[in-house]
Amino acid sequence: MLIKAVVFDAYGTLFDVQSVAGVTEDAFPGHGETITQIWRLKQLEYTWLRALMGRYEDFWSVTQASLDFTLKTLGLVATPDLLARIAAAYDALALYPEALAALQGLAPARLAIFSNGSPAMLTNLTRQAGIDTLLETVISVDEIRTYKPDPRSYRLVEDRLGLSRDEILFVSSNGFDIAGAKAYGMTVARIERVTLQALRDELSGAAVIGPKSLFKALRMQEEQLGAGADLTISALTELVPYVATRR
Amino acid sequence: MLIKAVVFDAYGTLFDVQSVAGVTEDAFPGHGETITQIWRLKQLEYTWLRALMGRYEDFWSVTQASLDFTLKTLGLVATPDLLARIAAAYDALALYPEALAALQGLAPARLAIFSNGSPAMLTNLTRQAGIDTLLETVISVDEIRTYKPDPRSYRLVEDRLGLSRDEILFVSSNGFDIAGAKAYGMTVARIERVTLQALRDELSGAAVIGPKSLFKALRMQEEQLGAGADLTISALTELVPYVATRR
Repeated sequence: MLIKAVVFDAYGTLFDVQSVAGVTEDAFPGHGETITQIWRLKQLEYTWLRALMGRYEDFWSVTQASLDFTLKTLGLVATPDLLARIAAAYDALALYPEALAALQGLAPARLAIFSNGSPAMLTNLTRQAGIDTLLETVISVDEIRTYKPDPRSYRLVEDRLGLSRDEILFVSSNGFDIAGAKAYGMTVARIERVTLQALRDELSGAAVIGPKSLFKALRMQEEQLGAGADLTISALTELVPYVATRR
Repeated sequence: MLIKAVVFDAYGTLFDVQSVAGVTEDAFPGHGETITQIWRLKQLEYTWLRALMGRYEDFWSVTQASLDFTLKTLGLVATPDLLARIAAAYDALALYPEALAALQGLAPARLAIFSNGSPAMLTNLTRQAGIDTLLETVISVDEIRTYKPDPRSYRLVEDRLGLSRDEILFVSSNGFDIAGAKAYGMTVARIERVTLQALRDELSGAAVIGPKSLFKALRMQEEQLGAGADLTISALTELVPYVATRR
């Protein structure tokens, strides 16, 4: 089947979320790494659990609740402006270095983002990064009030683009998202932000495996969910020739 | 409403799962703790993800897949008999010290287990522990091929017992399970296997927060999912007077 659109996950795929860690370290010196990793692990857990429970709240609400959980667990109390600074950090996330060139090189194809992020978060994010003009549309799960990898979320992408699943190349770094899109029937490219070998070296070199390494182990590898990526790439620009021969 | 049945989660609530850690340490000396914690974190993630994806596989299958993920991530290879030894460890899990006395004291009420475990796992487990005769029934999510906290799973408990949700006291140590049962409308008792203060002491006393502490932080506290327990207990025997006055 020919590829008629390339659809990108946002957080961790086009945008590097590590900069949010700076906010927690500023607010709680010496605890930033621990807070950030527990928070991010819990943030995604809450999207899965709320979707499964049928009790959707939007991604900013889940982000706040998972931060509340984390601070309470650690016995810390949020400063009044912490949430505002986190919101600002999310709005100002940096693109991965090669992302802009990849989007520009792919531009003859239809391009979109499909994300768990709330519409407001995604609008701010794509505008400040200057990629809004390269994208045909930004699709948020919020429209149907569930989260990835609910198959209904990937169906939303088909509906919004007017394409069938086998005409869509979906790109993500997130294992659960890769499995979800592949299980749904899209062609899936995995962008490998942490190689298995680098992770193994990091894990085997540590006396105690800390939260950041554990996050990488839990969330930045391919999952064993019976639905693997069609291709693995180490830079988004590798998609340009891949798509050019399949359009 | 009067309590007509007391329904227990199994793993982590009636049964202490830490003994499974011994198997991984025997098989991979020095790596047991890391393997066990990544594996257990991923095991529950896979139940949520498979339920949300609508691609159920039973708990033993998920247990194997999450172990495969963990060993691959760490660059380790399973020995041929590892799975058999893990299965044997799951079958031989010990009851928490007060669990038998609690079940015996509650016995005038209808008693059941409701678990993610596969029917075969739960049958072996309850028989070897000698509590099968105290239980009216053992209910597995396998019957409807989804996982907690899918509301359909708690509906199965109602259906199997012929009771309405407000006649059931559900008991769990697992945050997601507590939130799921409460959101569904059951009365929920949280058995607190790790107190918040003990966890905070453990986390603040560590130079690097290791996998076991992170597991406790992520999985042994109450979740911020908008549905909290009706009561928190530190021993299951506390349920005996609670139920006696509400029957």
